Amino acid sequence: MNVVLTDSVALAGPDLMDRHRAVFARAQQACRERHCWSPYPDMPGKYPGAGAAQLRGRQAFEAHLGAVFALDQPGVQGATPREAEEVSPYTQQPLGASYRFADIDTLFDAAQASIPGWAGASIDTRIGTLMEVLDTLYRDHLFEIANAVMHTAGQSFNMAYAGSGVNALDRGIEALVYAEQAMRAAPTTARWERSFGSANITLDKTYRLVPRGVAVCFSCASFPTWNAWPSMLASLATGNAVIVKPHPATVLPMAITVRVFRQVLAAAGFDPNLVTLALDSTQEPAGKLLVKHPKTAIVDFTGGVRFGQWVEQNAWPALCFTETAGCNTVVLESAPDLDAALRSLATTLCMFSAQMCTSPQNIYVPRQGVRTPAGTVPYAEVARRLADAVAALTSEPKKAAMILATIQSPQTLAMLADLQHQAEGTGEVLLAPAAYRHPEYPDARTSTPLMLAVGKDARALYGQERFGPVSFVIACDDAADALAQATQDVKQFGGLTAFLYSEDEAFIARAEQAYAQAGAQLTINLTGPMPLNFAAAYSDYHVTGLNPAGNASLTDLAFVASRFRITQSRRPAAAGTTL
Amino acid sequence: MNVVLTDSVALAGPDLMDRHRAVFARAQQACRERHCWSPYPDMPGKYPGAGAAQLRGRQAFEAHLGAVFALDQPGVQGATPREAEEVSPYTQQPLGASYRFADIDTLFDAAQASIPGWAGASIDTRIGTLMEVLDTLYRDHLFEIANAVMHTAGQSFNMAYAGSGVNALDRGIEALVYAEQAMRAAPTTARWERSFGSANITLDKTYRLVPRGVAVCFSCASFPTWNAWPSMLASLATGNAVIVKPHPATVLPMAITVRVFRQVLAAAGFDPNLVTLALDSTQEPAGKLLVKHPKTAIVDFTGGVRFGQWVEQNAWPALCFTETAGCNTVVLESAPDLDAALRSLATTLCMFSAQMCTSPQNIYVPRQGVRTPAGTVPYAEVARRLADAVAALTSEPKKAAMILATIQSPQTLAMLADLQHQAEGTGEVLLAPAAYRHPEYPDARTSTPLMLAVGKDARALYGQERFGPVSFVIACDDAADALAQATQDVKQFGGLTAFLYSEDEAFIARAEQAYAQAGAQLTINLTGPMPLNFAAAYSDYHVTGLNPAGNASLTDLAFVASRFRITQSRRPAAAGTTL
Repeated sequence: MNVVLTDSVALAGPDLMDRHRAVFARAQQACRERHCWSPYPDMPGKYPGAGAAQLRGRQAFEAHLGAVFALDQPGVQGATPREAEEVSPYTQQPLGASYRFADIDTLFDAAQASIPGWAGASIDTRIGTLMEVLDTLYRDHLFEIANAVMHTAGQSFNMAYAGSGVNALDRGIEALVYAEQAMRAAPTTARWERSFGSANITLDKTYRLVPRGVAVCFSCASFPTWNAWPSMLASLATGNAVIVKPHPATVLPMAITVRVFRQVLAAAGFDPNLVTLALDSTQEPAGKLLVKHPKTAIVDFTGGVRFGQWVEQNAWPALCFTETAGCNTVVLESAPDLDAALRSLATTLCMFSAQMCTSPQNIYVPRQGVRTPAGTVPYAEVARRLADAVAALTSEPKKAAMILATIQSPQTLAMLADLQHQAEGTGEVLLAPAAYRHPEYPDARTSTPLMLAVGKDARALYGQERFGPVSFVIACDDAADALAQATQDVKQFGGLTAFLYSEDEAFIARAEQAYAQAGAQLTINLTGPMPLNFAAAYSDYHVTGLNPAGNASLTDLAFVASRFRITQSRRPAAAGTTL
Repeated sequence: MNVVLTDSVALAGPDLMDRHRAVFARAQQACRERHCWSPYPDMPGKYPGAGAAQLRGRQAFEAHLGAVFALDQPGVQGATPREAEEVSPYTQQPLGASYRFADIDTLFDAAQASIPGWAGASIDTRIGTLMEVLDTLYRDHLFEIANAVMHTAGQSFNMAYAGSGVNALDRGIEALVYAEQAMRAAPTTARWERSFGSANITLDKTYRLVPRGVAVCFSCASFPTWNAWPSMLASLATGNAVIVKPHPATVLPMAITVRVFRQVLAAAGFDPNLVTLALDSTQEPAGKLLVKHPKTAIVDFTGGVRFGQWVEQNAWPALCFTETAGCNTVVLESAPDLDAALRSLATTLCMFSAQMCTSPQNIYVPRQGVRTPAGTVPYAEVARRLADAVAALTSEPKKAAMILATIQSPQTLAMLADLQHQAEGTGEVLLAPAAYRHPEYPDARTSTPLMLAVGKDARALYGQERFGPVSFVIACDDAADALAQATQDVKQFGGLTAFLYSEDEAFIARAEQAYAQAGAQLTINLTGPMPLNFAAAYSDYHVTGLNPAGNASLTDLAFVASRFRITQSRRPAAAGTTL
């Protein structure tokens, strides 16, 4: 016999839960207490066998270039492979990967047919199988996906590993924890006894969890996995099937994802059509068709505000969960070490060229200035010193490459130019954007940030998310006005994160209240090496649903509890039996 | 000192939770195990001091007749009292109660202003205060409300006590249990520590539960309290304010309700404008205005299908929870005692003249008949014997009065006449409706049931909810066809409950699967004195959300989890501190 039982051998669902039970239990504890925890190393260098694993991942990625992506799913029979709109922001060359576009109705039929066997499995079986999916992504595909994210979304390698790799896996486990909690809230059986008049009635009741049906999961161009993985897992854990619809410019990371889900599901004895891939193009978008498909039961959407709002208004009768975008705000009132605060802000403004839904954009500063131990620093000087801090981070190409990485879309460069033009006459250009030369990829699409100093009245400029490296330093009447303006803008335009620097505890308390009402997650007085907008799975709630930046939170019970429903049957208990 | 501490003395919120903690803990256990439990006596005769309490309740009700209902809420200043469209189905005379209609925008402003103090209270304080509201309804207003329900909705006294009284209170406690569970899933604080490079970052995090805002709760004409109380409590427990919009024909039960909520909230130190009453008329309905009001954050709707569907489609950006209506189905395959099954069915068809969202309507019978120990009873005989069982229940006025009670709306009588006319040529009239003479109220609006025998193709007749005493005995090809047709109709037209008689365990198993997919709660082989459609709080889930009969379930986590959101703030921990 040369069959060896290895870690990678296919196990059925219940056994898979045994394999992952300890990690899952630890994740449950982290979600209850919301402390810092992850089963994964936080930096690529700490990955087991990092060098070899990174090489294998890079080779696996490179094998996709110019090749037809093999995905054996329904609805692709006879389809000619089509090259996707994937262009590496690092080389500005097409990836050349081709995909067979599946027929949409065939995908829905296959997805629907896959549900009964999966929904009929136990909660443990589903959770165990999905933990195995995450583990397989981690063990066998993490660097392949990190490279694919780099060369579609344009993230740096470190961010692709963390933000699009292990952190996204963590948010996936977190979604499983809450899904399990919501499902366990309903018992599976009950015995119910009551008298009606002189008769005693004894009923045995059976409760069944029934999935909604087919979920459609839209992933976005700049951060494809971070929202999509938890959404997929929330739907799958509760028994639904998922059709993944990636942004046409960022297909590969999700194509790899879908293939891994399908392989692990099949190996565990389930229909792989629980997870399929629907593709479209900028010329012929399929988004509305997918949302309004009669078989669509759930929509998860991450992407732009305009289509996101359309999804929210039109998804009915499907449920919908969205994260769109917002104007993330900063209020500067006072600081014991203003330069430390400005350095942290500058880092966060530069991180992945502010192409993160959590990047700050609007910085509200009292016109008379920010109080410091050395006296009040006037508005103009604060703006200048912040711009200098950004310039210091981006002037040296190697440092710039690590922090700014690249610009995902050429449209972002056009937006920067347009904004700079618009700002003439309205505000002052603190920092003009310019391409920097990436040390490893000389043809990379890059830009240093655009920073503008404007008055409160320049809402036409700052009153919407400008997706990319843009920030506005906004002069306000005083600190109270800065807070009022910032939180009002969050309510009106949306906002996910917010940042405050203040030594005044009464002001901090007012800000906590105001941002809680506005629905932005607030970080106070943080300095040092942690990116201000870092959102930790198991601890930081992401999106509140209280403003236009989205209606779904990673991860609360509301994110999972309505993805399944409860049905029951009841019948007289057989005489003399106990449940 | 003549100040005596009594049970009714006003206590602040936390003390109120102490008063109700034992009952609440018992309710939590019941929800976990879903066994039979209630803190309330199930029959009016068992109420403490029943005779005196019933007399006081009747007198309190009678004091409303012809009087102006005093409700000291915003927006009524200067409003001339207007008589509502309330006509007692027992006397067919107007109640003559008048109400001051409040200005809608003023109500929303007052509701919104009431939220911060309430949302800022602890979970225990809110739950304790709301338990006190329920206890006050029970102790001081139960029979007043029961009489008000009798003389607006037309229920029998016993049903008004149970179905619109204690059972509705139970569903209210149940909503509080799940709201508490969902809110406790988020901790209030956490300490989070992680290294970034060589630096160690320690953050203290604070999590706040933030209510959505102002909820609008629509109550229906025939069962005003049963859905509205749990909806109100779910919204209030999670920190929201509620504007109640009763059906114009059934205002008084909800007006009393609103006044009690306001009194208890004020006595506990909260703004009474957390609960207000919005009135409209058939001529000038305010429903759409309320749903689309820019301050509306949540809509709970119980009522007709047409407006319910409009609400579901148009509520966004408000959340919406609906129960509309459906075609509840019965499948007869086989029975050891067919007469016992038919008696139970007949009772349930008659209960409150089938003006319950859980009443069966469509009875699917194999054409060749129903198997019994005495041989197969052909379709026509089954139909005949069921009609005879209904006739036996309704032929004697005193018995008829107890079970049929009255017809809430004159439109129901018109619908019966119209249907009977339509059925000519299409089907056979098994039982023609006729008024019966109520022994206590000779002018009562009454009708015995209309029963029709039809073919499967008569979908124009049976393919929608006919709200009132109407049922269809539908001839099907065989048992499998009966089940297929019944569950398909539930999927298409909606359905809350379903009833099956079968001795074939394989058939039962298929039916359980099929009804779980269709989303109707199934009762199997139940005979005896328990009404087949009795839905017990803490045990039976009401509405699945899987078909058009509504999207909200009493009570699962999904009913409560999205009524509040979670916000957070985080800041560096002070050196040397522990959380």
